[in-house]
Amino acid sequence: MIHPQLATMLGYLFTDVAATPAELKSLLREACDQSFNCISVDGDTSTNDTVLLLASGQSGIRLRDTGVRKKFAKALSEVCQSLAEQIVSDGEGVQHVIHLFVEQAKTRQEALQVARAIAHSFLVKTAWAGADPNWGRILAAVGRSGVALDPKRVNIYIGKQMVCKAGVGNRFDEARAHQDLAQPNCDIRVQLGRGHSSVAFITSDLTAEYVRINADYST
Amino acid sequence: MIHPQLATMLGYLFTDVAATPAELKSLLREACDQSFNCISVDGDTSTNDTVLLLASGQSGIRLRDTGVRKKFAKALSEVCQSLAEQIVSDGEGVQHVIHLFVEQAKTRQEALQVARAIAHSFLVKTAWAGADPNWGRILAAVGRSGVALDPKRVNIYIGKQMVCKAGVGNRFDEARAHQDLAQPNCDIRVQLGRGHSSVAFITSDLTAEYVRINADYST
Repeated sequence: MIHPQLATMLGYLFTDVAATPAELKSLLREACDQSFNCISVDGDTSTNDTVLLLASGQSGIRLRDTGVRKKFAKALSEVCQSLAEQIVSDGEGVQHVIHLFVEQAKTRQEALQVARAIAHSFLVKTAWAGADPNWGRILAAVGRSGVALDPKRVNIYIGKQMVCKAGVGNRFDEARAHQDLAQPNCDIRVQLGRGHSSVAFITSDLTAEYVRINADYST
Repeated sequence: MIHPQLATMLGYLFTDVAATPAELKSLLREACDQSFNCISVDGDTSTNDTVLLLASGQSGIRLRDTGVRKKFAKALSEVCQSLAEQIVSDGEGVQHVIHLFVEQAKTRQEALQVARAIAHSFLVKTAWAGADPNWGRILAAVGRSGVALDPKRVNIYIGKQMVCKAGVGNRFDEARAHQDLAQPNCDIRVQLGRGHSSVAFITSDLTAEYVRINADYST
């Protein structure tokens, strides 16, 4: 959870475009799937999470024009992704935001399954807290994700360096990987070698501060 | 993981009973299902986990006698359960061992699914670290376990007190619940109101010390 004294996440989006509820609903669902549904701090969910999109129609610009629709979808997606990223970086005790790209999956669902296994692994998240380029913990999480993959086809990148190639350690500059992970933001890329689907997921490290915040308030 | 510099768990069991590999295998599998496969510190698995059972036959006592077989199965199960519990209490940074009973499930598999959702919840585990009788976090984990349950049929006990009755808070002595959770061992019981299957699961709290241990060693 992000702010335990509030209702986790209440997202309100406003626009002056002229649109029907059905048009907005379909665009918002798509934008949410790529943003709010692709983040995780600790894997715990809330019954209060809400995203609302309201359109006043004030501008008179109509969403049913294809050109407008495309531009609007892009802007909506950008706003949602920015908000989603802010949620993770505001997470309790978060020191490092990890942009996790799972690629070469058979389906997007499969990519998400692998991303969540990585993002919810206590050992992976604590390694990130220590800025430790421990790709073995990432590979172990990938391996137990439930996706029937061949480890010999898995590559892992930390920052721009390939740290694991075809399931085994690749020679890399450890000091540089540590340095990349020590930044407030770091990219990690996992290639499964199974297909052409991918997901961009945003998650965080697990710090002693997270534990303190969540253990020390009573309810 | 328990001892990251070793191979997580290597269990060797010795007996002087006279038995065939097939007899031993079936008994060991059953004992493991009730013990080593019902524990979790952090949900991360290892490729090295091993349990071996070796029988010398030295005693001349044969396992194929039904009476012997029953006694042996019971003893084997007790040894495995004791070892499994020791693994959890030796977990990194563990302050509290939680004996989690999930009852009234439709199947044992369903009970296990709920137990694992609770045992792997960061928020539940940090509440336990603070000895906080926060049954809402437990109920939230039960709710997102993937089992299609009716929250109005769920009861939760901490120690001997029912803290949640039919999905809502029950009046209970909070100081006593806090005291129960502050012990090295505490029982938590979750009743799903769906059937007659159950599981006894052993897990732990998540402490700042766990994070320190796993973030601060590099590999």
